[in-house]
Amino acid sequence: MSLSAPMNPALVASFAPPVMEARGWLEGVAFAPDRPLLNLSQAAPVDPPPAPLRAAMAEAMEDAQTHLYGPVLGMPELREALAARTAAIYGGAVSVGQVAITSGCNQAFCAAIATLAGAGDAVMVPVPWYFNHKMWLDMNGIETVPLPCGADLLPDPATAASRITPRTRAIVLVSPNNPAGVEYPPALLEAFRDLARARGIALILDETYRDFHALEGAPHGLFADPDWDDVLIHLYSFSKAYRLTGHRVGAMLASPARLEQAEKFLDSVAICPTGLGQRAALWGIHHLDGWLAGERDEILARRAALQAGFQRLPGWAVESCGAYFAWVRHPFDLASDALARRLVREAALLLLPGTMFMPSPADGAAHLRIAFANADAAGIDVLVERLAALKL
Amino acid sequence: MSLSAPMNPALVASFAPPVMEARGWLEGVAFAPDRPLLNLSQAAPVDPPPAPLRAAMAEAMEDAQTHLYGPVLGMPELREALAARTAAIYGGAVSVGQVAITSGCNQAFCAAIATLAGAGDAVMVPVPWYFNHKMWLDMNGIETVPLPCGADLLPDPATAASRITPRTRAIVLVSPNNPAGVEYPPALLEAFRDLARARGIALILDETYRDFHALEGAPHGLFADPDWDDVLIHLYSFSKAYRLTGHRVGAMLASPARLEQAEKFLDSVAICPTGLGQRAALWGIHHLDGWLAGERDEILARRAALQAGFQRLPGWAVESCGAYFAWVRHPFDLASDALARRLVREAALLLLPGTMFMPSPADGAAHLRIAFANADAAGIDVLVERLAALKL
Ligand SMILES: Cc1ncc(COP(=O)(O)O)c(C=O)c1O
Ligand SMILES: Cc1ncc(COP(=O)(O)O)c(C=O)c1O
Repeated sequence: MSLSAPMNPALVASFAPPVMEARGWLEGVAFAPDRPLLNLSQAAPVDPPPAPLRAAMAEAMEDAQTHLYGPVLGMPELREALAARTAAIYGGAVSVGQVAITSGCNQAFCAAIATLAGAGDAVMVPVPWYFNHKMWLDMNGIETVPLPCGADLLPDPATAASRITPRTRAIVLVSPNNPAGVEYPPALLEAFRDLARARGIALILDETYRDFHALEGAPHGLFADPDWDDVLIHLYSFSKAYRLTGHRVGAMLASPARLEQAEKFLDSVAICPTGLGQRAALWGIHHLDGWLAGERDEILARRAALQAGFQRLPGWAVESCGAYFAWVRHPFDLASDALARRLVREAALLLLPGTMFMPSPADGAAHLRIAFANADAAGIDVLVERLAALKL
Repeated sequence: MSLSAPMNPALVASFAPPVMEARGWLEGVAFAPDRPLLNLSQAAPVDPPPAPLRAAMAEAMEDAQTHLYGPVLGMPELREALAARTAAIYGGAVSVGQVAITSGCNQAFCAAIATLAGAGDAVMVPVPWYFNHKMWLDMNGIETVPLPCGADLLPDPATAASRITPRTRAIVLVSPNNPAGVEYPPALLEAFRDLARARGIALILDETYRDFHALEGAPHGLFADPDWDDVLIHLYSFSKAYRLTGHRVGAMLASPARLEQAEKFLDSVAICPTGLGQRAALWGIHHLDGWLAGERDEILARRAALQAGFQRLPGWAVESCGAYFAWVRHPFDLASDALARRLVREAALLLLPGTMFMPSPADGAAHLRIAFANADAAGIDVLVERLAALKL
């Protein structure tokens, strides 16, 4: 087909959404009724929100405001509730003017980057990275500076310091991590905060999975710093906590001055987060603490089941694991992208290959990411059995 | 406050969301109970969707899929239904692969531009323009080339042709227009299509208000061209048709190759449109034709009421008017931005000043945009009375 209208080369050069690509592998594959697909490719709760939340959402349909445009940066009540909740979890002071609600945490990342950097600038990201971060940087002409991690999957502030250039605008950390599951220790996060502050760049910290952190209490002390918002941009998602992935609610916490800039971006790409998603998130904050604590216990139990299960798999190794994800090394003499495709047909498993999270696919050839939190204990047994039975 | 982390100068240089700015004018203003605010600033239905749609939406809460991530480009059933609907309205062939669902029409515009242009490129837009289009171009470093309109508020293809440069990637038209209300004649749209095709650039046509077009039948014949998708990018919104502004559902129709690129952008900024918004839009397509026809009749009646009302206002002139908006000239020796602020306190009216829609504020000083479709006939009487009573 000839296209007379032009294409933006920066977008063409960006890679396609990996999750959609992986969905494509399922096309034309028939799964035996006694061996249905086990899909551990995306961190996406498979169940709907709990019944009382669904009932509250159905009720919200009769509130006219649910259906109307709202403020760009979100409903004041939800901004207020998340400010209070954040201060309660982490200690420190967080005001409503430091909280913006976004249409999901991916959008919060896009907004954060929009306030910081443009084409020609650079942003540092540990590898393996979350592919949506990389995609957004690519399509905006922002250079991604890869920050290698050690065997513990943790990035090193000294290495980061040596890679900062005058073009660097931010360091992006994800904890608990996607794809590696690893939880960054508080002292490490503080060291990155100090580095960013010393060099006049931002620290973006994506805590989409913080509700499933193994640590009791605050995952870090960054908010206790009264000047946190001169350096920290914190991102959060309501998607996983309350099973609201299809409603698109997340948040960006930053200085009021930065949110004033983010508002321009968000007005353009979203106008406002949905009325229903925001009401659901607010209801969750008010009513679902006990339920969420149970969810966390369940996910921690799944993590333990996964680790125990992989002990039974010769040649496989769980290199790191936490919250939603495990980052595992496979024993085959086959690159992980080829392996992942074969796992669909030969084991009825959808996992993402390490190649999708790396600057050079070769670097991820030995790894798979498993969104294990999507499976219950029985599902994790199935995963382990299917991997054990593999003949490649 | 000192910010150690940097700000993106292109974003700082972009203007702030005008609708939020106008909302700010209301702060601290007390309205007399017998003279409440009449807000005609935003094209936003004030009523919720019709009761049967609300009931269908409440029911959708019990469908687990409503709450889960879906495909980036939208639910196949909705894409299919909108393809069929578009073909039925306009004639011609539209396939499911030419339809993407977005989180609102603003996002569809952002996605369309992302596929076309980057920093340093240029896009042509008639003036007065829709400010969100201008904002997005500004923050992406894309030059907006203003295309002046005649006294009839219509742009001229010959003038456009003379302003195309090698950097021009697209011409953006909005019909029925925001802010001017004017409906572009089919032949004019076809002339722009031919120009864009001849020059190898895209024609972006935003038809957010097409359901309220005064013309019976197809608003234009562009889809009847079997090769429409080599040049046309059509944008649509479910916000106004079914009163779903708070649910964020719109669409972008373009070539499959272009949608494949748009998918990268949409995956990053949205992941997917909401499950509920999409189900509501689909329900609307299936069940609300009769209701929507009634809405259109009502809005056409409001338009007639507005035109009749302004006949009674000495010195005022409705320069153009249609679908949701009227573009009116005021009689005062006062710039429209100052006038609009005074109208809040002195007439309990929120209207947007022409200055918000123009490259240079001076050009819009004599005009106001009135989102008249938000007011019923009684409301339009109130508007006219309050303007008649003004002593400035
Ligand atoms: C690290 C990380 N950030 C952001 C997101 C996106 O979350 P949301 O659904 O809130 O956009 C995800 C989802 O998988 C994620 O893993
Ligand atoms: C011309 C135009 N395009 C797009 C939009 C945005 O619509 P949506 O609510 O679908 O994002 C509007 C809303 O006012 C508009 O006037």
